Amino acid sequence: MEKFSRNNRVSAITKILVENPNSIINLNTFTEKFNAAKSTISEDIVIVRDAMERLKTGRVETISGAAGGVRYICDISDEEVEQFITDLCLILRQKERIIPGNFLYMTDIMSDPKIIHSAGLILAKQFNHINIDYVVTVETKGIPLAYEVAKLLGVQLVVVRRENKATEGPVVTINYVTGSSKRIQSMSLSRMCINKGSKCIFIDDLMKAGGTAFGISDLLKEFDSELVGTGVLVDNMENPQKLVHDYYSMVQFKGISEDNFPIVEPSQGHK
Amino acid sequence: MEKFSRNNRVSAITKILVENPNSIINLNTFTEKFNAAKSTISEDIVIVRDAMERLKTGRVETISGAAGGVRYICDISDEEVEQFITDLCLILRQKERIIPGNFLYMTDIMSDPKIIHSAGLILAKQFNHINIDYVVTVETKGIPLAYEVAKLLGVQLVVVRRENKATEGPVVTINYVTGSSKRIQSMSLSRMCINKGSKCIFIDDLMKAGGTAFGISDLLKEFDSELVGTGVLVDNMENPQKLVHDYYSMVQFKGISEDNFPIVEPSQGHK
Repeated sequence: MEKFSRNNRVSAITKILVENPNSIINLNTFTEKFNAAKSTISEDIVIVRDAMERLKTGRVETISGAAGGVRYICDISDEEVEQFITDLCLILRQKERIIPGNFLYMTDIMSDPKIIHSAGLILAKQFNHINIDYVVTVETKGIPLAYEVAKLLGVQLVVVRRENKATEGPVVTINYVTGSSKRIQSMSLSRMCINKGSKCIFIDDLMKAGGTAFGISDLLKEFDSELVGTGVLVDNMENPQKLVHDYYSMVQFKGISEDNFPIVEPSQGHK
Repeated sequence: MEKFSRNNRVSAITKILVENPNSIINLNTFTEKFNAAKSTISEDIVIVRDAMERLKTGRVETISGAAGGVRYICDISDEEVEQFITDLCLILRQKERIIPGNFLYMTDIMSDPKIIHSAGLILAKQFNHINIDYVVTVETKGIPLAYEVAKLLGVQLVVVRRENKATEGPVVTINYVTGSSKRIQSMSLSRMCINKGSKCIFIDDLMKAGGTAFGISDLLKEFDSELVGTGVLVDNMENPQKLVHDYYSMVQFKGISEDNFPIVEPSQGHK
């Protein structure tokens, strides 16, 4: 069987860990793949851990016991977070983003894998310390971001639908009042999507008055489950009265300036 | 300034490349980050390239010239593809996946980051050899998969909407006939989403008769753009008459067996 050099193993182990965030990988996986002794692999892992810690791009945890192994936890340095948020503000301040109805056009941002990957890292970091079972979002624009956060936290994504679809099987539907326009809306979630007694976080592109987050919390109660955190990219401050108070946002949209530019600032804690 | 060992650099370079698929990274990025000479970094990259090639988990290409650097191209070995497709068939053959209306329940699969990452790798590999500008999907279930493919190919995701939304700005809407139920449906895409003269691939969870893929091709013509490839997870063979012929699928759904199990087989080329 083929032998690999230390450098080769270190590269390959890094790749496997990074591609499987928050998943415990048994050391046997590596000893078999690289035809190497457990002690050798352990030394390789120390090197990977050291590289990540020095560059503040993640942690490698060792879990002992029969079901043990190593696990990669994503991270991003404070400097990179601040840089990302500064760049995001610049992008969001473009004049042409104001579209009829005085909405802020964000579709391109929410579909840009480079932006979404970094935003996902920042959000995952906020919730890395709590054990959650699902990342929940509502269709459509927040799905890539919620998927990225779910992947980085190593859990399943759950997409709540605006309408009941035949392909979802039995669903639970709730009605809720939007906080901004006071309209009644409904949302549905397949019975098969969530196990009872789960802890969930809600991830979305934009927080207006928080009606959706409030509705999600209600919907999860129908599954005997709990909303334990909320994270959004943009907090719309045109709705200063929020129905939810404990949430994380990266930037704040504060309306339109006199010369018709979007006013966008870093959220509290990022100034 | 801090110095890094070769092993540390190899680990860190691997991580940066894997997190930025199909993006050209200038060697200066590495020389500055690791305070090392260009010749040293070049040797590090040879080690990373060698590790990926030996394990068939990707390629590292060198691009010369002023705008040059290195680029990671994702890959997955034929053995891993076959293993994934075998496993996917087993999951899809579960009896409880048949839901009222004789639909195949796939929502959990399309929201499972581990499954979607592997499926994304397999699809990205199919289209790695052509230069595309966008990965297009239609809301909702295919979005995580299409996002993953877009990320791996280093391009922007485009999500076509079923309805016109106020937050999308000016949109182009087309009507199309679904191939399976012969109903008229419409889909909309924001004018700002696609540049003229672009080449796109369409990624979705399920192909029925191909009406949606056909509609996407029509919609892209309104943007003077072209559909150059289509890839789906599941090909529904209950609709054997397809409106499109050149597409890639992983598995085929062939209806329900006498004892009420889904009949799912690997697609042609995966047997």
